[in-house]
Amino acid sequence: MTTSQTNIFDVGVFGFIKILMRGTAQVMFQGSAWCGLFFIAGIFWGAYDTGMHYMAWGALLGLMVSTATGYILNQPQEDGREGLWGFNGVLVGCAFPAFMGNTVWMWLALVLCAALTTWVRTGLNNVMRPWKVNSFTFPFVLCSWLFVLASHVMHSLPALHTSSHIAHSLAQVHTHLAIYDVWSVIKVWLSGISQVFLIDSWVTGLLFLIGLFISSRWAALWALIGSALSMGMAVVMGLPINHIDAGLYSFSAVLTAIALATVFYKPSWRSALWALLGVLVTVVVQAAMNVAMKPVGIATFTAPFCVTTWLFLLPMFQLDERDPDHSSWHHRS
Amino acid sequence: MTTSQTNIFDVGVFGFIKILMRGTAQVMFQGSAWCGLFFIAGIFWGAYDTGMHYMAWGALLGLMVSTATGYILNQPQEDGREGLWGFNGVLVGCAFPAFMGNTVWMWLALVLCAALTTWVRTGLNNVMRPWKVNSFTFPFVLCSWLFVLASHVMHSLPALHTSSHIAHSLAQVHTHLAIYDVWSVIKVWLSGISQVFLIDSWVTGLLFLIGLFISSRWAALWALIGSALSMGMAVVMGLPINHIDAGLYSFSAVLTAIALATVFYKPSWRSALWALLGVLVTVVVQAAMNVAMKPVGIATFTAPFCVTTWLFLLPMFQLDERDPDHSSWHHRS
Amino acid sequence: MTTSQTNIFDVGVFGFIKILMRGTAQVMFQGSAWCGLFFIAGIFWGAYDTGMHYMAWGALLGLMVSTATGYILNQPQEDGREGLWGFNGVLVGCAFPAFMGNTVWMWLALVLCAALTTWVRTGLNNVMRPWKVNSFTFPFVLCSWLFVLASHVMHSLPALHTSSHIAHSLAQVHTHLAIYDVWSVIKVWLSGISQVFLIDSWVTGLLFLIGLFISSRWAALWALIGSALSMGMAVVMGLPINHIDAGLYSFSAVLTAIALATVFYKPSWRSALWALLGVLVTVVVQAAMNVAMKPVGIATFTAPFCVTTWLFLLPMFQLDERDPDHSSWHHRS
Repeated sequence: MTTSQTNIFDVGVFGFIKILMRGTAQVMFQGSAWCGLFFIAGIFWGAYDTGMHYMAWGALLGLMVSTATGYILNQPQEDGREGLWGFNGVLVGCAFPAFMGNTVWMWLALVLCAALTTWVRTGLNNVMRPWKVNSFTFPFVLCSWLFVLASHVMHSLPALHTSSHIAHSLAQVHTHLAIYDVWSVIKVWLSGISQVFLIDSWVTGLLFLIGLFISSRWAALWALIGSALSMGMAVVMGLPINHIDAGLYSFSAVLTAIALATVFYKPSWRSALWALLGVLVTVVVQAAMNVAMKPVGIATFTAPFCVTTWLFLLPMFQLDERDPDHSSWHHRS
Repeated sequence: MTTSQTNIFDVGVFGFIKILMRGTAQVMFQGSAWCGLFFIAGIFWGAYDTGMHYMAWGALLGLMVSTATGYILNQPQEDGREGLWGFNGVLVGCAFPAFMGNTVWMWLALVLCAALTTWVRTGLNNVMRPWKVNSFTFPFVLCSWLFVLASHVMHSLPALHTSSHIAHSLAQVHTHLAIYDVWSVIKVWLSGISQVFLIDSWVTGLLFLIGLFISSRWAALWALIGSALSMGMAVVMGLPINHIDAGLYSFSAVLTAIALATVFYKPSWRSALWALLGVLVTVVVQAAMNVAMKPVGIATFTAPFCVTTWLFLLPMFQLDERDPDHSSWHHRS
Repeated sequence: MTTSQTNIFDVGVFGFIKILMRGTAQVMFQGSAWCGLFFIAGIFWGAYDTGMHYMAWGALLGLMVSTATGYILNQPQEDGREGLWGFNGVLVGCAFPAFMGNTVWMWLALVLCAALTTWVRTGLNNVMRPWKVNSFTFPFVLCSWLFVLASHVMHSLPALHTSSHIAHSLAQVHTHLAIYDVWSVIKVWLSGISQVFLIDSWVTGLLFLIGLFISSRWAALWALIGSALSMGMAVVMGLPINHIDAGLYSFSAVLTAIALATVFYKPSWRSALWALLGVLVTVVVQAAMNVAMKPVGIATFTAPFCVTTWLFLLPMFQLDERDPDHSSWHHRS
């Protein structure tokens, strides 16, 4: 516990900003405000660089709304201090402007959905507590699915494209993945990390990586391993090259790798093997969910990460003792 | 507890009829036989008025079969006295003649499905007990989905239309919603309440409202608020006007409003705000499920109410102490 | 408990083969190695007879991999002795060569998926323990769905056909079901049992029946009843004749019948009625899932059996005391 135990209502403006930064960092399981600051910087760079600047402002708005909802509903303060009220909201804020047109109703829907994730997270964690797992980013996934599906019939909330929006609109800025071109491969490698926040930019990936490195060297290493291994497996299995290119088979794998190798188990050769297996299964689950959701036309978001990590945590194997420094994420939330 | 504690097998014919009436009233969380009597009257009026008189007789049959199944399986008697064996069956009885052709196999399927809801309710309540929520009308939803889906390939159980059957067949009796015409708006407002039983008739909605008023003035008020707010939000969000017109964005919202504002929390300004938020989210969930289920061609039934109310109850917030007069619905079942 | 209590790592080659045979028999809830030997014989006969010999070798490979995974992960030894590590893997091994092309990646995917079922089973059983039910063959169903869905977009893992592959490719060896021809009906009757392992062969069905008879006469009887009743109901309800013909409406019903009548309740007239109802509902669930999964183009596998048996076990009715000889299946796993 690196954070102060003072009442969360008494932290002041600077303390509140730190809570917001931690909320952003918690998307990748980090409790460091500096890490979150680099994440925010990465989001802003990527959003403006790819011409989707509303995503950056949406991310800030979603982050503030879902964190404020934690205050209003008087949720347990330890969660708030660690930033656990904000990470679903920041993702909602990235997703809404990417999948829906820029109307006033989109922004109101974003506010409602970001607030909703805060109590859906409490509810889902209540459901999952007996099984000693966590809802992860699934509140964001579930609530965003509902609103994005609804946008297909709500004329005031226009759906921007079909489920493959992100893939198609962003992939075109790349040349196709060329194995002989090391620089291209590195850019895809980093984009896999940036896509955790639905952004396709190698610079953003690099900024995210620096943020991770500040918070935990293991987390940074496993983000790189997760992105590389999932990219490699996707190429070998012959998945669509423009999707691989845009990092769309890597973002969930990055989260699975960090979660299994560094958060819920201490780094060791056993947990490393477990995390590598988890990355391979995440690619299968990502491909499966892409197929399953095509008829309804929505994106999987980070659901493949949630599903795979649940499948690897529910057996409750004692690979080694849980890491006491990170277990707070698990037990408290 | 307004009902007698005598053995449920000794209640006589009149006592059994009271149990059936309570079963109908429990669709909207009421334990009053008089309320149920007005509901049955509303169903008969609406079914005959819209030319679907089999729905009325199906409702009676489903109600009797699912209640009798509670006797046969020797379920806890307190549930039986309160009418909790019958509310899923009465809805099955409304849905089957609306979605399947009038063959002898349809009536046998109705009997099997109505009976099934009684033990599926027991099973799902067992599953949900640790989370202190209830299966609500989800046994009806789940079992009816199975039979209606099956009817798409069972030639002896012919599906009447596609998922939008109710919407299209019933909406045509309306003129389109005209904002300037107060009387039209009032009719849609009341139809939103009648659609809880899959009927599109303002007279039925009025009879339901009278039944609610007899049992609980708060419930009647919140049925009106739920229907009005969901209708307004559906119009503002630009949802299909013929669906709004037929009350199809309101029936789940009516149930969410009654549940959150009057059943699981005591009426107060906090629970009122919570219920209003619940109504808004129900409209989003209704739209989302309409889109998600379109590829398989079935109706959502009251699933949007169940999903939304679970999302609002699972966090187990203490808005204020649970209403002791109504908590029996919650805890016992 | 008929098996020895020696350490599972010290059983020797012959003891390991017995564990593998029990793993095959556990697909139909039997703990007898002789039963499993007849099942393996049936799989080999059917696979070679229908020109799909890879299914037989896949079954052996999947069985060995998932059992070995139980050793590697050091799972509870009682489960291993009873064969509970192997039954999901043997089904994965039958399904993969039936639904995917014969590439080296298919075999590697089969190995990964078979291993995955072992810990997914542990995880799902952890989830379901509070409700006193078991994951049955659902680990096979869930993991195979993921890989088969993924094969629709993985070029290195080519999907063989659409969801109706098994139905269409195997049904053509039959003439259509002719009610007047007793021999044809008997062949379909037995094929319904063979389809538990995704094989359409009356000889295989007969070998399975002999295996069941050796282990439990009640199980053999109920396999016959389940297959006959589901075939009859499918004909009466007018389901597609080529699907009935191939036993595709019977395999889940066979498992439901054995489970409800002989495994989770002692044979009695009450449990017999309960099992007959379960068979009827299984046919409805099978038809419903066929319709629901058509848009995504995958098979239901044994999911209709899992869903129906859960719906019939979750109410936890005491039809009579649980059968102590079989309750080990239930409680341990």
